[in-house]
Amino acid sequence: MSNKLENTDRLCLHTITTKPWSIEIALEQYAGAGVRGITIWRDTLEGRDLKKIRRRIMDAGLEVVSLCRGGFFPSADETERERAVLDNLEAVHEAEAVGAPSIVLVPGADPRQPLEDSRRQIEEGILRINEEAKKAGVRLSIEPLHPMYADTRSAVNTLSQANDMCDRIGDSNVGVAVDVYHLWWDPSLGEQIESSARHGRLFAFHVCDWLSPTSDLLYDRGLMGEGCIPVPEIRGKMEEAGFHGFIEVEIFSTRRWSMDQSRNLKDIIEAYFQHT
Amino acid sequence: MSNKLENTDRLCLHTITTKPWSIEIALEQYAGAGVRGITIWRDTLEGRDLKKIRRRIMDAGLEVVSLCRGGFFPSADETERERAVLDNLEAVHEAEAVGAPSIVLVPGADPRQPLEDSRRQIEEGILRINEEAKKAGVRLSIEPLHPMYADTRSAVNTLSQANDMCDRIGDSNVGVAVDVYHLWWDPSLGEQIESSARHGRLFAFHVCDWLSPTSDLLYDRGLMGEGCIPVPEIRGKMEEAGFHGFIEVEIFSTRRWSMDQSRNLKDIIEAYFQHT
Repeated sequence: MSNKLENTDRLCLHTITTKPWSIEIALEQYAGAGVRGITIWRDTLEGRDLKKIRRRIMDAGLEVVSLCRGGFFPSADETERERAVLDNLEAVHEAEAVGAPSIVLVPGADPRQPLEDSRRQIEEGILRINEEAKKAGVRLSIEPLHPMYADTRSAVNTLSQANDMCDRIGDSNVGVAVDVYHLWWDPSLGEQIESSARHGRLFAFHVCDWLSPTSDLLYDRGLMGEGCIPVPEIRGKMEEAGFHGFIEVEIFSTRRWSMDQSRNLKDIIEAYFQHT
Repeated sequence: MSNKLENTDRLCLHTITTKPWSIEIALEQYAGAGVRGITIWRDTLEGRDLKKIRRRIMDAGLEVVSLCRGGFFPSADETERERAVLDNLEAVHEAEAVGAPSIVLVPGADPRQPLEDSRRQIEEGILRINEEAKKAGVRLSIEPLHPMYADTRSAVNTLSQANDMCDRIGDSNVGVAVDVYHLWWDPSLGEQIESSARHGRLFAFHVCDWLSPTSDLLYDRGLMGEGCIPVPEIRGKMEEAGFHGFIEVEIFSTRRWSMDQSRNLKDIIEAYFQHT
């Protein structure tokens, strides 16, 4: 089990968590609330001058933890696969421009083809962008997604699979992102976190909660403490394995997006201290 | 890969698949359509004389494949756990009365407690009812459920976990039910099916499909061929492992329940030949 978190030094927010806010407002509000890290979702950068955003982030005293998201490599259509590679190369340059040391890769899947094909295409896609990512100083984090997303979002559904993929790729620039929402149910999670750590590939840690009942497959995540995921216990496993990086709050929630976002931010900080 | 199915000798329907029909109508309609097996959901037996139902089933020339469902053992509340054991003992006697050689156990989970506690309580619950089940000639099939049900329906989410549980219980009366909906995403499925078979515990095989997109966590299953599960391939793995029992169609679908059920049955039989 983990010790209580005593300050916000490790607190990072994904911009999607406060979706109604523009990147400019998010930066200001996060910094004002004592949040230290920010993981930037690419949609918030649309139409922006990335150098200016980079400057604003530095002025706000925030650290960019990751750019979210690359990936979505598989497709039964070859042209689409090429497009995905190009889009990921663009993400690498965006990450470099905003000062993100890593990109979260949501692996992707295509229901029109076997999972095995999607898995092979994910690996091929990563190999296609990894050299460029290394030149840019950008690490790649494979995020295994919950098996309920195996049709369209990820053919990589356990940390064990992500670790195996990293083993095959065999490059220290490619690691994993552990998200409690996707992996909490897996009895081998602790041992797989240790394995990731031993290989120096435990790059990121995302938190939220699983609501019971959950009313929507995508947009009904809970705040830590609202659901049944033992978040502090999983954080404990991460720390025992040597991870002391940012704790990234990533919550997709129609319900929370419809709230006043200052209230949402206050709730998140409270939940960070009480239930993370 | 499997050979085409050439007749309905192995076709079984779960009564829940044609939910609007009473057990009496279901029996008649299934038999008339050439269905050979029936898995009876307990709700259809409410208020019925089980001996009469047993007689009707025999008269219709149907074979009872399983009674569905027992289980739901875990609870943070001890009184509820005791109630669950009693309810499962009742299920054993119902199974015996209607001539069901086995009960499908939906293991259960309680979001108020750690998954490890739920897992231990599932095992304890099975041990509590197994002797009575053996006396009644009723086998117990542990059905691992998709990880999206880990909060309230099942703390057993992979075939590997179910196999481990069977190993610990160590009694040939306790085996597993393989449902493609719950397990299709798991890259170790083939090897775990072989392992179940080697131990003589491959008791049941349930089919349906995963719709993409899926609009509801519970009631939006598809007919075989409507989604992205490689049902024939998984059937092939079952058969290579030596399973040649009933192929049980179990589809929870608000959409299909709202159809004319004769049409639903026709579609199922077509999908059985074309996509199973």
